[in-house]
Amino acid sequence: MTLHSSLNEPCMPDDPALPTPCLLLDEARMAGNIARFNRHLARQGLSSRPHLKTCKSMAAAQRLLRTPSGPATVSTLAEAEYFAAHGVTDICYAVGIVPGKLARVLTLRRSGTDLSIVLDDPVTVDMLNTEAKRLFADRDAPLPVLLELDCDGHRSGLDPAGDELLAVAAAVQASPFLELRGVLTHAGAAYARADVQHIAALARQEADAVLAAAARLQAAGHDCAVRSVGSTPTALLGEYPQGVTEVRAGVYPFMDLTMCGLGVCTTNDVALSVLTTVIGHRRHDGALVIDAGWMALAQDRGLESCFLQWGYGLPCTLDGTPLPDLRVSECNQEHGIISVDSGDAAPAQALHERFPPGSRLRILPNHACATAAQHDVYHVLRQGQITTCWERMRGW
Amino acid sequence: MTLHSSLNEPCMPDDPALPTPCLLLDEARMAGNIARFNRHLARQGLSSRPHLKTCKSMAAAQRLLRTPSGPATVSTLAEAEYFAAHGVTDICYAVGIVPGKLARVLTLRRSGTDLSIVLDDPVTVDMLNTEAKRLFADRDAPLPVLLELDCDGHRSGLDPAGDELLAVAAAVQASPFLELRGVLTHAGAAYARADVQHIAALARQEADAVLAAAARLQAAGHDCAVRSVGSTPTALLGEYPQGVTEVRAGVYPFMDLTMCGLGVCTTNDVALSVLTTVIGHRRHDGALVIDAGWMALAQDRGLESCFLQWGYGLPCTLDGTPLPDLRVSECNQEHGIISVDSGDAAPAQALHERFPPGSRLRILPNHACATAAQHDVYHVLRQGQITTCWERMRGW
Repeated sequence: MTLHSSLNEPCMPDDPALPTPCLLLDEARMAGNIARFNRHLARQGLSSRPHLKTCKSMAAAQRLLRTPSGPATVSTLAEAEYFAAHGVTDICYAVGIVPGKLARVLTLRRSGTDLSIVLDDPVTVDMLNTEAKRLFADRDAPLPVLLELDCDGHRSGLDPAGDELLAVAAAVQASPFLELRGVLTHAGAAYARADVQHIAALARQEADAVLAAAARLQAAGHDCAVRSVGSTPTALLGEYPQGVTEVRAGVYPFMDLTMCGLGVCTTNDVALSVLTTVIGHRRHDGALVIDAGWMALAQDRGLESCFLQWGYGLPCTLDGTPLPDLRVSECNQEHGIISVDSGDAAPAQALHERFPPGSRLRILPNHACATAAQHDVYHVLRQGQITTCWERMRGW
Repeated sequence: MTLHSSLNEPCMPDDPALPTPCLLLDEARMAGNIARFNRHLARQGLSSRPHLKTCKSMAAAQRLLRTPSGPATVSTLAEAEYFAAHGVTDICYAVGIVPGKLARVLTLRRSGTDLSIVLDDPVTVDMLNTEAKRLFADRDAPLPVLLELDCDGHRSGLDPAGDELLAVAAAVQASPFLELRGVLTHAGAAYARADVQHIAALARQEADAVLAAAARLQAAGHDCAVRSVGSTPTALLGEYPQGVTEVRAGVYPFMDLTMCGLGVCTTNDVALSVLTTVIGHRRHDGALVIDAGWMALAQDRGLESCFLQWGYGLPCTLDGTPLPDLRVSECNQEHGIISVDSGDAAPAQALHERFPPGSRLRILPNHACATAAQHDVYHVLRQGQITTCWERMRGW
């Protein structure tokens, strides 16, 4: 994919031929974010298994992946199929498997993709065995399995210190269809508190979980080659000790206002924004009406209960300079409302004169994964000019 | 489009070959909702211009439209282009126009679509004139314009009693490129308060706005043939007096939990749901983990500050029976958490036994527009069986 069908040649973001709302991606900022992340891991001798659920684009993924064939992490089988079709052959499907998804997993593996699956329940192992009996052919090698660990009470996962861990490992090992490859965890709690020390401690908690579980599994005679951890905040604000084998993170190439709020980056690092046009104003308070509603911005409110937030996004000028007195305070499907943060009427009236109908603005997103998911293409900005489009995939 | 590519023949929602998460649409419920809406308008002698931003699907739209060619309302030019390509020729683009969008409007009109545009600002008229000078050909008829009115302080729109209304109308009339067709309003405030009397009063307010403005415009010598109002709550809970010429509403065919909360319908009327599979549980509280996160459910929290709400959605059994003690309490990208509403530990443990991994559930959405937008197809349920798929469009 090169440019949007309506564009014949590179254009500036204020080109009327560029339809708004649309998603902009600042390539230099993304490159800077990736370089910083990779340097931080390299200093610790760690390697990355980027989570491609944020970018969902091969053109973007090429810039993250260590080699064209991976390793990579995905959150849906549709992502696995898309990236496998583009040559990525080392993929971890990091959402708990259910037996109904086994047929597609096998199809991918038979076409040469080393796809690993994740589980945390003995019931799942039993059901996989039943389904595998029906689907496996002689030539099929056992499926590599990672056991999901709970390091922070956030979501699913086995207690690294509990009996259930060894029971599930034994069930996997006893299955002719499965093969234990290792353990995996994710500190989802790292997104809930804007405290750099706390997030660094959660990184340590991720590492402790996988290392403790690996030691117990190995003592019980199991292989546990993979000890996988990660999230963008824990990876960048924390450090992992020796023994951790890979780091999974997805937001770091783009960054967003949530990462700014957590202290992971500044607004100058946010590579993603939504380009929008002012379509009018609200008569009684002077608020601007823009053509980016929740359909273009997503409905993620960030961690509004935890720390400073910007409504549905932080408005910037066309060159990306934040307008910190403004915020997207309300969203309907295709309408956004930009208000003055102070609620002061005088600057609100001035706002309408400053940005009359037809003016363009950029909105920094609360959550890169959610905002990008509302769009089918990235309009890639190079030195202020849109030079190419990168397509995104979607679905399950 | 017939069935999902993975399905060769009609299937039940518990068929493992049907990938989850996916969007289900109960055709009988939708037909019931449409019939109720049309009956309610017919009793008042009103006609409908359905808003197709909710369904974004020609197969669904066919069931709403009065005739195969319309009339219809859309919220993006991409919708206008999609529906025009499917034979809908009478379309109102109900989001404020900006001059950069004029070229696409003209292309649609030249191909035979009677597309009307909406504006509320004299600056917009000036800019349209400048752009139209560049783009208009001799054969182009003037663009039909509706003036947007603000009936409730919710968003954009002119004051029906203000001087600006007549100034903008005069500017439109003075333009060789524009033609005043009428006025339009939408009571966005109807979604903010669960009070049937209040919503009925807002319907009256919509009508008062368009009728007052039309009278003033006509007194000033302008045509004002179209007096357009509507939202699903005001249309169904209120009545419109004579003089209103059309009603725009979009959610009514599907309904959602917000409409239930407002008293517009019951959970038995909600035609849309997300099919999901249980993938595990959270160890410390027994909450279920499902494979529908915000990517499948959307992040709309409903009107949680205003009235009873169900987190990110209300779980139902596979046949659509609500489980009122449960709710989707948390969402990550591809993980949802189903908790017991009471927070009681005993039923939470029972929950895991009641719905072990592999179990399927349906989730009723807070907001049909937002949840449907996360999906590319409707899986259409007829008598409990998925018999066909309807594609959705997206983008701008």
